[in-house]
Amino acid sequence: MSQTVSVEDRGFTLGDGVFDTALARDGAVFARARHVDRLLLAAHRIGIAVSRDAIETAIDAALTMEPAIIRTTVTRGTAARGLWPASAGAPTVVVTTAPWSPALVGQPARLITATGRRNEFSPTANLKTLGYLDHILAAREAAEAGADDALILNTRGRVACSTIANVFALIAGRLITPSLSEGCLPGIMRALVIEAAPSLGFAVEERPLAPQALAGADAVFLTNSVRFLRPVTALDGMPLAQGDLAALQAALLARA
Amino acid sequence: MSQTVSVEDRGFTLGDGVFDTALARDGAVFARARHVDRLLLAAHRIGIAVSRDAIETAIDAALTMEPAIIRTTVTRGTAARGLWPASAGAPTVVVTTAPWSPALVGQPARLITATGRRNEFSPTANLKTLGYLDHILAAREAAEAGADDALILNTRGRVACSTIANVFALIAGRLITPSLSEGCLPGIMRALVIEAAPSLGFAVEERPLAPQALAGADAVFLTNSVRFLRPVTALDGMPLAQGDLAALQAALLARA
Repeated sequence: MSQTVSVEDRGFTLGDGVFDTALARDGAVFARARHVDRLLLAAHRIGIAVSRDAIETAIDAALTMEPAIIRTTVTRGTAARGLWPASAGAPTVVVTTAPWSPALVGQPARLITATGRRNEFSPTANLKTLGYLDHILAAREAAEAGADDALILNTRGRVACSTIANVFALIAGRLITPSLSEGCLPGIMRALVIEAAPSLGFAVEERPLAPQALAGADAVFLTNSVRFLRPVTALDGMPLAQGDLAALQAALLARA
Repeated sequence: MSQTVSVEDRGFTLGDGVFDTALARDGAVFARARHVDRLLLAAHRIGIAVSRDAIETAIDAALTMEPAIIRTTVTRGTAARGLWPASAGAPTVVVTTAPWSPALVGQPARLITATGRRNEFSPTANLKTLGYLDHILAAREAAEAGADDALILNTRGRVACSTIANVFALIAGRLITPSLSEGCLPGIMRALVIEAAPSLGFAVEERPLAPQALAGADAVFLTNSVRFLRPVTALDGMPLAQGDLAALQAALLARA
């Protein structure tokens, strides 16, 4: 890519921004309104006055290939030195694309538990901010252990998320996923699972989830906007049960 | 500034980098070796193989005015999509400068206590990473409350730092500052205070510090590389005692 930003952009200097990752396929961005809503909300929560129009226009301009992973980044732009007041000029809106393949859907994942903890007491715990270094280091731990992703616990030792996905456990016919107050992101695919599950016979509970409960679950899976539903086959080297998730996966794909 | 970086630079997309802020004055960067050592160590801790030479050269090239605040940023550079493996090309090293004035030294500060908590269980808790958004939001809280900076507690409710500084309390002739395991950065000025204090008659203790202890302290102050020692005059609207810190400030300035 030849696009650049100023080295004074606060997205670069201070991680002062938020982003979104979505999937463009069959002529449209999957769940586009939900993705744009969430990105706008996050930007406004941290005081970046970006308009919906600026985001929609940038996405439209970038949609030159598909299927593609669409990443939309919004930062506070450039500003004088200092954390706050941050009297920035116009926000920076950048959209980039990367190739997507259907082969990414549903690939099973082996997890390890990351050493570092996610901070559920952070004001940005539920925002997809640019600050991904802790998750990068957890992904490094996973790679070095020969795993595919890392389970990340919050400071109270309960399940928060993986490095790039939300976590669900199927326990006695109920789908359990950490509530947002546990420090996870409000994933778009997470929301779609929560909405689709009851009609497929799964009750859903958003609540604290102890990592110990995963060992006895009938299935554990990850969700995100690129891979849809990803079954977890092992945690810290211990195999997990592989309950049938095909109907749920199919329901998600049917919406795409 | 006309310097730019690629929008695919992982410093911009994922906060995948570290930085340092130092002061250039009287022909030299104050405590330059300490600053470069800390930056190198942080980069290497997160797996960025930047060389000392690359950093030193970039700093030298940027030293065209003084006094100046020198900011050195090191990122993993551009890479293919995905958190890890992050087979990046060359690291990005960017040095920018901003004006500095002696008037910044020792300005008193009124603090509020930030709502959000700093994560002492993060693998990056002691690294000056690009992920500053939580501190930006704490600085916004301070500004909105008419204060100058915010005190940030860790997840256990103990003092970690301010948004841009380390915290010290003078209690019964001893200087207390949070230990690194409380989640603070290993500030260069913090280290210089710790080294200078004994010869000025202050014993130093690095240990957990309850915010309640600040009310009864003989003095509370902040340290960083731009403002040296900054007395705290009030916390959450309550005046704090103003013990004599002149000898300590003078000792720090004498080293600069």
